[in-house]
Amino acid sequence: MTEKKRTTIVLFSGDYDKAMAAYIIANGAAAYDHEVTIFHTFWGLNALRKEENIQVKKGFMEKMFGKMMPRGANKMGLSKMNYAGFGPKMIKDVMKKHNAIPLPNLIEMAQEQDVKLVACTMTMDLLGLQKEELLNDIDYAGVAAYLGDAQDGNVNLFI
Amino acid sequence: MTEKKRTTIVLFSGDYDKAMAAYIIANGAAAYDHEVTIFHTFWGLNALRKEENIQVKKGFMEKMFGKMMPRGANKMGLSKMNYAGFGPKMIKDVMKKHNAIPLPNLIEMAQEQDVKLVACTMTMDLLGLQKEELLNDIDYAGVAAYLGDAQDGNVNLFI
Amino acid sequence: MTEKKRTTIVLFSGDYDKAMAAYIIANGAAAYDHEVTIFHTFWGLNALRKEENIQVKKGFMEKMFGKMMPRGANKMGLSKMNYAGFGPKMIKDVMKKHNAIPLPNLIEMAQEQDVKLVACTMTMDLLGLQKEELLNDIDYAGVAAYLGDAQDGNVNLFI
Repeated sequence: MTEKKRTTIVLFSGDYDKAMAAYIIANGAAAYDHEVTIFHTFWGLNALRKEENIQVKKGFMEKMFGKMMPRGANKMGLSKMNYAGFGPKMIKDVMKKHNAIPLPNLIEMAQEQDVKLVACTMTMDLLGLQKEELLNDIDYAGVAAYLGDAQDGNVNLFI
Repeated sequence: MTEKKRTTIVLFSGDYDKAMAAYIIANGAAAYDHEVTIFHTFWGLNALRKEENIQVKKGFMEKMFGKMMPRGANKMGLSKMNYAGFGPKMIKDVMKKHNAIPLPNLIEMAQEQDVKLVACTMTMDLLGLQKEELLNDIDYAGVAAYLGDAQDGNVNLFI
Repeated sequence: MTEKKRTTIVLFSGDYDKAMAAYIIANGAAAYDHEVTIFHTFWGLNALRKEENIQVKKGFMEKMFGKMMPRGANKMGLSKMNYAGFGPKMIKDVMKKHNAIPLPNLIEMAQEQDVKLVACTMTMDLLGLQKEELLNDIDYAGVAAYLGDAQDGNVNLFI
């Protein structure tokens, strides 16, 4: 019996294009029969936010962060050529034209392929994000759990 | 017989300084007798563009992207302190002073050392880049080929 | 006898949040009994600068870089939502509230845990940074030394 290969991605970035790269690699690795984990930390947590405005009790700073950060994958900007939101529109237009899969669907597909989506609890605390605000059926963990997966990983990436 | 070590880099970034880091590591690994692949995706593809304006048929959006993105390694900006192009000039000046190798020459050197330079076909499609516009003697592939290399990699980086 | 696991991080970024992620992973890995190296290159060198203004002889360009770059971990900006320095203040406020460890202390803790902190000599040259300006008890090396560590690494990241 051979063990499964393992791919572990830290998604730190909150950019649409970088998150797309992360999820394309993750879905590819899952199709290759790897065990795949995406550990969402800092701005990468925004990819896991629900689109609707969930009412939860928060302190002032946490409310500020909540308002300033994009609510969900579809609202994220680009790492380059963002041009106040025009860049993401352009990218989404060419993606539609070329039948590329939009980020929210890439995330769904990852969940269907049993990619383990993890939200970093320490940075959730810092940014004031609560479980109710994030997608269903994800895991919650800290850096120790990440390292437990990564130390046996064949492909480890920080995106 | 021992197998060669393997280094695999995803170059996602279109910044001069990050591409420099990628190519310095790649050339170092090749000198160390690793098998080395740089998989250029998204803005990282710009490092592979030819400097001259190649005439190819394109749609409107693809022309726009083509005009907005830097044509070749030498035209790329910095990830920090870009200052509307002043930063890259400063960096290139200190590089000359310290006899550091400019990015276009690092790319040439990589090709001479048989570093495999791959252009991601999916993002070429999205950004409307065509083979005629990219350097000669490079490979074209998708995420599956990248994962095939990376899963046996000793050093895998996303830059 | 089993060999120790090894974690090797290239810290290229000069952002407070990315450096925090690097040092949290490094401290976690050291607690897990990994041999850990952080190789600071380009803007990541700023995390190793002493806070005080050290007088050293420099050329004009090197002085400019020295002035434009943040002097030490505590002065670094954010990769997102920097808002001319307001973002870092917000982050530091929520960090205090949640008892998260500030970056300068994470660096101290890494040194106490024998994480090997390396400054890249090639980019020190380019940016005009001298040993007197950097923290005590760090190592100095080039890309060959990095690759020597990384090629046996279990977790290799570029941040």
